Amino acid sequence: MTLFSEINEQPDRIKNLLTSQRKNVERIAAEIRGRNIRYVFLAARGTSDNAGRYANYLLGAMNGLPLALATPSLFTYYKKPPRLKNALVVGISQSGRSPDIVSVLEEGRRQGCMTLAITNQAKSPLANASDFVLDIMAGREKAVAATKTYTAELMCVAMLSAALAGDKTMWADLVKVPAWMMRTLKQSDFIAEAAQRYRYIDQTVVLGRGFNYATAFEWALKLKELTYIIAEPYSSADFAHGPIAMVESGYPVFAVAPRGRVFNSMLDMLKRLRGDISAELVVISNDKKALALAQVPLHIPPAVPEWLSPLVCILPAQLFAYHLTRAKGYNTERPRSIRKVTKTT
Amino acid sequence: MTLFSEINEQPDRIKNLLTSQRKNVERIAAEIRGRNIRYVFLAARGTSDNAGRYANYLLGAMNGLPLALATPSLFTYYKKPPRLKNALVVGISQSGRSPDIVSVLEEGRRQGCMTLAITNQAKSPLANASDFVLDIMAGREKAVAATKTYTAELMCVAMLSAALAGDKTMWADLVKVPAWMMRTLKQSDFIAEAAQRYRYIDQTVVLGRGFNYATAFEWALKLKELTYIIAEPYSSADFAHGPIAMVESGYPVFAVAPRGRVFNSMLDMLKRLRGDISAELVVISNDKKALALAQVPLHIPPAVPEWLSPLVCILPAQLFAYHLTRAKGYNTERPRSIRKVTKTT
Repeated sequence: MTLFSEINEQPDRIKNLLTSQRKNVERIAAEIRGRNIRYVFLAARGTSDNAGRYANYLLGAMNGLPLALATPSLFTYYKKPPRLKNALVVGISQSGRSPDIVSVLEEGRRQGCMTLAITNQAKSPLANASDFVLDIMAGREKAVAATKTYTAELMCVAMLSAALAGDKTMWADLVKVPAWMMRTLKQSDFIAEAAQRYRYIDQTVVLGRGFNYATAFEWALKLKELTYIIAEPYSSADFAHGPIAMVESGYPVFAVAPRGRVFNSMLDMLKRLRGDISAELVVISNDKKALALAQVPLHIPPAVPEWLSPLVCILPAQLFAYHLTRAKGYNTERPRSIRKVTKTT
Repeated sequence: MTLFSEINEQPDRIKNLLTSQRKNVERIAAEIRGRNIRYVFLAARGTSDNAGRYANYLLGAMNGLPLALATPSLFTYYKKPPRLKNALVVGISQSGRSPDIVSVLEEGRRQGCMTLAITNQAKSPLANASDFVLDIMAGREKAVAATKTYTAELMCVAMLSAALAGDKTMWADLVKVPAWMMRTLKQSDFIAEAAQRYRYIDQTVVLGRGFNYATAFEWALKLKELTYIIAEPYSSADFAHGPIAMVESGYPVFAVAPRGRVFNSMLDMLKRLRGDISAELVVISNDKKALALAQVPLHIPPAVPEWLSPLVCILPAQLFAYHLTRAKGYNTERPRSIRKVTKTT
């Protein structure tokens, strides 16, 4: 199965990306530092938009850079792009061919902004529209559901953050990611068995917060694309603001809750869901307390620091979506109604 | 029923807001124009976050202002607020009491930014943390599900946009909103009957794009809070990027598709959903072609311009959520598991 082998390719691809793009990333970071950048203006769709969500937290927390997610229709349908003075304009796209993302970069260049493409296609229209190109080096992705291009995009964002911070500890952590990934992927057989339990679910919510808000979105997207269930992602804070009302006893809730700054807030939510509402929990974590609350605990290595946890936490989520697709008897390679490259305008 | 009367109060509240806050809005707009503002940094949660989504499109399209939605956990849990130089920092909150939103405004003030609170409580912690306060004048909202505070927040954003643009045509349109609202609310009996058809749905997707991306989110939130169904909002562009795979024949899709720049793209999606997939459609529009595709067409007046359509389109959506709640036999006034003020940190 192509999807399964692409999931398993990730440690090698990430390792290769780290060595081959580091100099390029350092050069891009130097250029950013040399300019009067006030904020990042980022355009992306689908899986790449979730990489943008990671960038939102990471560049904010580590580099003090606010991030605005572009609304591409302002550039295409409304023809009223905002003034982008002092913005670093970034486009993330696997194919580099989504016309609306390309328009945002073209407009950024027109307004004299520094522009950066993060893409798997260094010769794409997106790359052509940008001053700087960061090649995610994921190799051709054949499966319709994106997996290795997602983690490669996350790694590019993480490398950029480390380069901007000029922080050696961050780089030292980055090189450990492939090994953490390999260890995490060993749970595949366990996940294949655990997925059986969810053969008949038709809906779920996926919770994550902070850096792993992105992971919640990406897990939910894989579930929707592959298993056709309704899977809605939430930050635990927004979830408490209303949608928690729909959770009844036995309702399946998937959660990404590794150790870190937002862990206690996630743990409180998990306790409330399991203790007060008797919800069913699938939890990705490296903390015993969170894992103990889950009917299905999915592990990541204890040493993974919070800022890099999205690169590792998504692996059991991808495997879970893959195995649930098989349990439900659907085609993992060719999900109905979607194409690999969606050319939205 | 308090919720029903609060829905029906909206034309009067909006009319009053327009006259009583215009001078204040003009003063705030003058202050913004006098400063070196590069972008808006906006913090909000729940319903108010949906008002923020409207601001994202409106201030972008009409005033050239990019907008970054704050990630409050960077301020609270991570204690790493980004550098906000040249940002206008805005908080939107009905109660003005959500600690995480207040922290964003406090940090904005600490960094010397211009700060603005849009709130129903002019003496709240949020108002105290801000240089400027825009009172949404909605009167006390007793129902747990927010309705009149949402449209009042939208109206504040729309007035601010008109004042920043210094555009008399925009003001002339704004004063027509209460009449458009009154006309739209007359569909209540029709909607009560139509809602019967959806007594047994347990999930739906809600589509909107451009200015009405906000409406899709707010309609979905009302459905989740009141009827406990899974209702996931999408831009039609993101929907085409994957989640459309889960739609089967008869699957209920709710759509907000008034005339305007993104109308043709919405219409194409509706044709695909009805024609190719035989989905079930509830459509809010003022265009015959879109309404003709729906099993349940919900009208707004033909004259409503796209930029103000979110203020009118949300009314049939609120009524639909209200009547569906009754059809399902739930309590419209006290949804389970949620409180009026959620103090997220």
